Amino acid sequence: MLVVAYLGWSIDREPAGTPQMVEIAAYIQEGAQAFIKRQYRTITIVIALMIVPLTILFKDVRVPIAFVFGASLSLLAAYIGLRVAVKANVRTTNAARTSSAKAFALAFKGGTVMGLSVAGLSLIGVSLLFWLYQDPNLIVGFGFGASLTALFAQLGGGIFTKAADIGADLVGKVEKHIPEDDPRNPAVIADQVGDNVGDCAGRGSDLFESMSDDYITSMILGSALLSSLGMNGLMFPLMLGATGIFATMIGVFVVRMCKNIRPIMAFNIGLLISAIFCALGTFVSSMVLLNDITVFYAAISGLVASLAVGLIVQYYMGLNGRPIRKLAESSERGAAINIITGLSYAFQSPFLPFLFVLMAILFSYLITNGSLYGIVACNLGTDLAIGIIMSSDAFGPITDNAAGIAEMSGIKIENERALEELDAMGNTTKAYTKAFAAASCTVSTVVIFATYGEMTKLYSVGLGLLSPVIIIGLLLGAAIPFLFSSMSIGATAKTAYQIVDEVRRQFRENPAILEGKAKPDYARCVDIATKNALIQMIAPALLAVASPIVVGLLLGKYALGAMLLGGLGTSAILSPLFTFGGGMWDNAKKYIEGKAGMKGTPTHDAAVIGDTVGDPLKDVAGPSLNIFMKLTNMTALLIAPILLLL
Amino acid sequence: MLVVAYLGWSIDREPAGTPQMVEIAAYIQEGAQAFIKRQYRTITIVIALMIVPLTILFKDVRVPIAFVFGASLSLLAAYIGLRVAVKANVRTTNAARTSSAKAFALAFKGGTVMGLSVAGLSLIGVSLLFWLYQDPNLIVGFGFGASLTALFAQLGGGIFTKAADIGADLVGKVEKHIPEDDPRNPAVIADQVGDNVGDCAGRGSDLFESMSDDYITSMILGSALLSSLGMNGLMFPLMLGATGIFATMIGVFVVRMCKNIRPIMAFNIGLLISAIFCALGTFVSSMVLLNDITVFYAAISGLVASLAVGLIVQYYMGLNGRPIRKLAESSERGAAINIITGLSYAFQSPFLPFLFVLMAILFSYLITNGSLYGIVACNLGTDLAIGIIMSSDAFGPITDNAAGIAEMSGIKIENERALEELDAMGNTTKAYTKAFAAASCTVSTVVIFATYGEMTKLYSVGLGLLSPVIIIGLLLGAAIPFLFSSMSIGATAKTAYQIVDEVRRQFRENPAILEGKAKPDYARCVDIATKNALIQMIAPALLAVASPIVVGLLLGKYALGAMLLGGLGTSAILSPLFTFGGGMWDNAKKYIEGKAGMKGTPTHDAAVIGDTVGDPLKDVAGPSLNIFMKLTNMTALLIAPILLLL
Repeated sequence: MLVVAYLGWSIDREPAGTPQMVEIAAYIQEGAQAFIKRQYRTITIVIALMIVPLTILFKDVRVPIAFVFGASLSLLAAYIGLRVAVKANVRTTNAARTSSAKAFALAFKGGTVMGLSVAGLSLIGVSLLFWLYQDPNLIVGFGFGASLTALFAQLGGGIFTKAADIGADLVGKVEKHIPEDDPRNPAVIADQVGDNVGDCAGRGSDLFESMSDDYITSMILGSALLSSLGMNGLMFPLMLGATGIFATMIGVFVVRMCKNIRPIMAFNIGLLISAIFCALGTFVSSMVLLNDITVFYAAISGLVASLAVGLIVQYYMGLNGRPIRKLAESSERGAAINIITGLSYAFQSPFLPFLFVLMAILFSYLITNGSLYGIVACNLGTDLAIGIIMSSDAFGPITDNAAGIAEMSGIKIENERALEELDAMGNTTKAYTKAFAAASCTVSTVVIFATYGEMTKLYSVGLGLLSPVIIIGLLLGAAIPFLFSSMSIGATAKTAYQIVDEVRRQFRENPAILEGKAKPDYARCVDIATKNALIQMIAPALLAVASPIVVGLLLGKYALGAMLLGGLGTSAILSPLFTFGGGMWDNAKKYIEGKAGMKGTPTHDAAVIGDTVGDPLKDVAGPSLNIFMKLTNMTALLIAPILLLL
Repeated sequence: MLVVAYLGWSIDREPAGTPQMVEIAAYIQEGAQAFIKRQYRTITIVIALMIVPLTILFKDVRVPIAFVFGASLSLLAAYIGLRVAVKANVRTTNAARTSSAKAFALAFKGGTVMGLSVAGLSLIGVSLLFWLYQDPNLIVGFGFGASLTALFAQLGGGIFTKAADIGADLVGKVEKHIPEDDPRNPAVIADQVGDNVGDCAGRGSDLFESMSDDYITSMILGSALLSSLGMNGLMFPLMLGATGIFATMIGVFVVRMCKNIRPIMAFNIGLLISAIFCALGTFVSSMVLLNDITVFYAAISGLVASLAVGLIVQYYMGLNGRPIRKLAESSERGAAINIITGLSYAFQSPFLPFLFVLMAILFSYLITNGSLYGIVACNLGTDLAIGIIMSSDAFGPITDNAAGIAEMSGIKIENERALEELDAMGNTTKAYTKAFAAASCTVSTVVIFATYGEMTKLYSVGLGLLSPVIIIGLLLGAAIPFLFSSMSIGATAKTAYQIVDEVRRQFRENPAILEGKAKPDYARCVDIATKNALIQMIAPALLAVASPIVVGLLLGKYALGAMLLGGLGTSAILSPLFTFGGGMWDNAKKYIEGKAGMKGTPTHDAAVIGDTVGDPLKDVAGPSLNIFMKLTNMTALLIAPILLLL
């Protein structure tokens, strides 16, 4: 956190550029503040409403305290990242005026703040609570609070950003033929705000809860499975967390040293060196704390699987790969064929990454001689690189926004292609992070599920797999993520409608806006997106929390266990399906604009439709499903002690 | 089957109309024959290739004999239905020239041939084999043969029909602005052929295997669970099958009597009366054969659930309902918003029907005091109305084709709106059948799975639900239907490309075609669709058969059991998601054309894109997933005796 403070300070002291840039940055900052203030208020109300029931249910005030603490730290981590990102946007634009290397350094610095504050606060929070409570079972509330907050942050932010994006594009680019990020577009500020509150703050909360949940479940399972090792078993996950943070700092340092090579290469070298240090730290921790080399192997298999997913992402997303080329070609036959072909690729894309993850789980289980702790270690392994990957993710929206600010303020930058190249790199790393998040999240959920299973002793059930209770719970669980996806996609569509109507209204009622002679009412679009996003995020979040409670109380702990498994099965596929699919449509459009040079043709129009369809999938439904799976499982974990009494 | 023969004869003796109509009908018949001949040859080769391995594996020649018999009867049932449907098409058009009531009667008669031949041949086949073998376990091969054939028929037919449909529409309607079913369009005959080979023959094979699998699994489970009842337990499923056939005949008779009311009302009355007779027959069978009223309740819950699904279909598909209206409205904001909104509805639509099905399963289990036989009875209940529902399904493509022939031959019909009204009704009943098929299929698969569980004694597994073997099998199973969907959607897209290119080529190379002065080369399009459909159907079918074998042999019977459950979970949602989604896009387009009267506007263009996207989903991926789930389970059932030896 000291490094975070230093980086924040060093970004702050950079100059923000021309008065016009400062003005635009102020609009974005205001919009982001307005959204965050109202969103945090809504989340605070929900959190507050749950304190009393939690206290009554658990008859122990430490559970709701952990819950509030987890929620607060999650909000804090995202807020720090967001604030610094908003500052870094305009400063990156300004730096790009004179040096593209400096622009890269600044944007990456902004991303690192997010990565380190997420990883740092999560480790500090869990360690602190464990030091106070001395019982990992009491910390479940912390993870539940973090998960609940993350779902709200991701859903609210995601709906906001995509509705603004779609609204701005459909009226601006498609109907009025003005360029992207044109200051005449009333939704342009909302779009920029969205990049910060959705992509930055949302993903930050997501990974915060991912790490917190992993520490907590690893400690609970560790205390059950490694009871002979005493405190060492409990310290192992925390040591791995610390290892990851130090390795991230080293990796980030390496990236900043590599000034004279292409940014994407610099990042790859940093990631590799970071991974090597992670492996070293894990080896030392495994031998010193557990004296068990197999745990080290299991953790490394998780690390390798999470990095291998990156290769598959490059195949599906790469502008030189077959899928993007085929998808771009298919657009020549119109929008319908583009969508069908995209769907076909999207439905296929999760399979290989998923297979890697399953193989890592199976390997970890077998290498540790059939111990569930192998899977725990594998899961901790998938988290090792989270810090540096998160840094590269938050870097994406910063450069995206920087390019937008440059466009809007019409300033001249040193190297015209510099920001574009950084933006393209940001797209790749964003896709990579999402795939990484989905893979990491699948293993996490398996471990949370296993923890639930341990707590409720899901060892034998009447007729085994044949029991109708299991079958029905499982099928119900499989169905719910589809309903959740429907809600989040529908919410984005509804909010986007309203932005479309508002932008159309402003253009119609004040033709001077389009002529560039009058300022559009940016705040109105921000306000519509804020209000709708906050209302629309409630129902899906409720579904995630209520479904395990209802099924657990009505059909019992076995049905709930089966429901969790069914839900895991579908969300673990749907989430990468949405993010890969959306990313492919986006990149096919980029391919048509860039390599094929067909901007403005019917083929390009078809690809724009595909890109728009992919937006709510890749930035709302996909990422929030990751949180959905963990939240349903954390909810089950939270109520497990109560189910045991029934 | 005697009734089938009579109906076929009575359709045949109707006049086929003007020479031009006869000529068009001849084209369609030729195309259908050409496709069926090559498709059946391909299927025969696959079937033949499996005889030797089956004989070696089972060391009992009765298994491969049952397998070949099941495959042959499935092909025969579909062929009878298809032949009569092709004849009924043109005769329905001709009847519509003078009387719309007569047109309805003829089309419905054509559909009834399909319904009765499917139900009849399935019952005859299973009964005959049981009479010969006296052991239901030996008949599994019959169901496996029927399922394998059905998957080929549905995939091949589905890819053919949708590729032709999309190709004809994209170039004809969208690019050249000629009407649907215009004789100048080179792909128009392929489109008509497709309606017959895809919708009629494909669905016929699907329901044939559904019924056969249900008889077989009910008899196997019956002999295990009701062993005290001896032969009565084995006869019960067959008696229910016979009940369904008689009730269908009564229902069809009622529909034909109701000449003076709207066709959809006539059908509803027929369905209701048929359902009442089903209930009566089931009551008698339950009391006489099993002396157990709870089995009657369980069967009725299946019947009720399958009929209740129809109400939900009407909500989602109805031109007066909220979803269609909202989807049509969303099209005003362009194709992208239409697709996003459609996806949101599609992802939500399976939930309620699925919940009905799960409730029926739970009810059946509880009412029979926790007996798996309750679920068997529930499953038999969902099949009771299959005959009459199948009749109304095959009726759909017949009227669709009749309208097409009228358009192509330019004849005058008595009541302009008569065929249109029948066509619209056909769309509703088609959607209804698909929803019914998905619901029935979900329960069927649960029962096949339970049969597999009984045979392999899946009663207790190491750590229960916590066992990583279970978790990995389950997650893998959940992933495979997505891969399967990707393959079937991609296959349609690829074939559609080629049709688009061919139609464009014909228009380009011979401009006289568009002027109506030269005949297009219809046969070339039929040939391209045939060749591609047959090649593309192989890989997905292989996936369905190979995946359970590979997992069973590599990871064992528990992992395979879990895989089946995981696969059931996702395919049971994806299948109705695809069919509902596609149907909604289709009907939103109809709403915009009809009620809103906006044909030719940008809103309509947006809706046409949505409709095209929905085509491969609703007619290829959705229906073949139904077969996919049963086939994977039947494969597991077939290899269960071998897994037990490992």
